[in-house]
Formats: sequence, C-alpha cells, structure tokens
Amino acid sequence: MDQRVSFITLVVTDLEATRRFYVDGLGWEPAVDVVGEVLMFRVAEKVVLSMWVESGFVEEVGHAPARGGILPITLSHNLATARGVDTVLEQARAAGATQIGEGVQREWGGYSGYFADPDGFRWEVAYNPQEIGQSVLP
Amino acid sequence: MDQRVSFITLVVTDLEATRRFYVDGLGWEPAVDVVGEVLMFRVAEKVVLSMWVESGFVEEVGHAPARGGILPITLSHNLATARGVDTVLEQARAAGATQIGEGVQREWGGYSGYFADPDGFRWEVAYNPQEIGQSVLP
Repeated sequence: MDQRVSFITLVVTDLEATRRFYVDGLGWEPAVDVVGEVLMFRVAEKVVLSMWVESGFVEEVGHAPARGGILPITLSHNLATARGVDTVLEQARAAGATQIGEGVQREWGGYSGYFADPDGFRWEVAYNPQEIGQSVLP
Repeated sequence: MDQRVSFITLVVTDLEATRRFYVDGLGWEPAVDVVGEVLMFRVAEKVVLSMWVESGFVEEVGHAPARGGILPITLSHNLATARGVDTVLEQARAAGATQIGEGVQREWGGYSGYFADPDGFRWEVAYNPQEIGQSVLP
C-alpha cells in the first residue's frame, strides 16, 4: 500500500447546508455534483474531498456513523502568512462557519485558528513556518 | 479560502501502535517523526497526513475528541484495478489492520473494501473507473 490518500470523504447530514457553505459561501467549484447524494471538490493534485450523504455511507459501510462531540480529526488549510490566517477565518465566518476561534500563536511556532463547517468538521487555518508547513503551500 | 486541503490530522490514542501499523507494517516513511507527539507522512503533492497524540489535540483545540462508534469520515487509497484492491487489503491485513471487509462490486460501478487502522479510522481501498476516480491515480 503506497503512501497515498486519494479521497477524503466526510459524511454529512444535510448536503444542501454543505453546498451553501462550500459552494455559495466559499465559492468552491464541485468536480462532481449529484443532488441529494454527493458533492466532490478537487483539493490538491490527485486528491478529492467528497461530501457524502449519510444514507449512502450507511448502505456501503454498514453502520450509521457516530455523531456528537468533537471528532478526532481536522483538515487544515495552510497559508503563507499569519495575516492570511485572519483573512480566511473572516471569510469562513462570512460563509456561515461556526465555532470560530481567534488566530492564536502556537507553541510549535506557527499561528492558527479553527472553525467548524455545517456538520461540525473542524478546519484549522494555519500559518506554519516549519519546513513541513512550507512544503504544502501552493 | 481557496479550494485546498494541506494537512489531514488524525488524533491517535497510541502513537506507537500507529507507528507499528503505518511504518513497520505498511512501510511508509515519515517526513516528521517526534516520538510521543506526532508522525507525519506525505500522502499527495502538497498534502500531509499527520498522526497526532490526543494530548496535543486537547491542548490546542480545547476539547477531548469523541470516541466510540464509526466515525463519519473515511480516507481512500485508489488503485488502477480491482485486483489491486484485493492485494492492498491483504497487505493491510498483514500489517495488522482490523475489521477488514472483502472487496465488493459497488453500485457506483467500482470495487472496494474497507479496513480500520489501529484507532479505528476507516480506509477504503478502491478501484473507481469513473473519471473522478481515474483522475486521482498516480
């Protein structure tokens, strides 16, 4: 098994709320858009972020997913400056994100803040001056 | 906020179990390896999969993550053939994966099977003949 992630699939409870946030709010363009089923976005070279309705997941995976609480996973959106972090946190707020934290200087040397998407999935918006953080910038 | 994911962070309860599975079992090479804190792997161009100990997450995010049940998220590893899916599912089994499903012909036209990593994070191993699935192959 090579060291690759091809798709990140988030299981959503309300695909129209997802659409309002990511498409209408953030202006993202779906690569695949099947109303009532799935929205897919290209989020890196050869990586797709897929927002899939819960009924599809239950049918394929065989279990309803756990809900409630903070999930033990985050996605991050990295930027070249701390100022960029503040700008994107404001954009997320304007797009309807909730539970938006302030940008904070982190002990690992960077600056970041978190927000939640309509299903509570946590995004970290981050400036990371370390080599690994710089390596993911566009 | 541009349409980009930079890091995927999974919050793990036992970083040494994570290491045994991904490094010793699957042969993945960390880009960052801080014992007791974090393991990071490059999993696409400009995308890093970060395995972070729960204490670090709690300190930064301010909440202990919910555990228990199937999480509403999966990562997928896509392959060019259905036979490749079976091979990788076997590799995952040999590396110590659990809850390994058989490869199944899916109604969306592909072939896939799931397994769980040491913390229960679900991976889908998939052959997807659709355009979106082909577009993520190496």
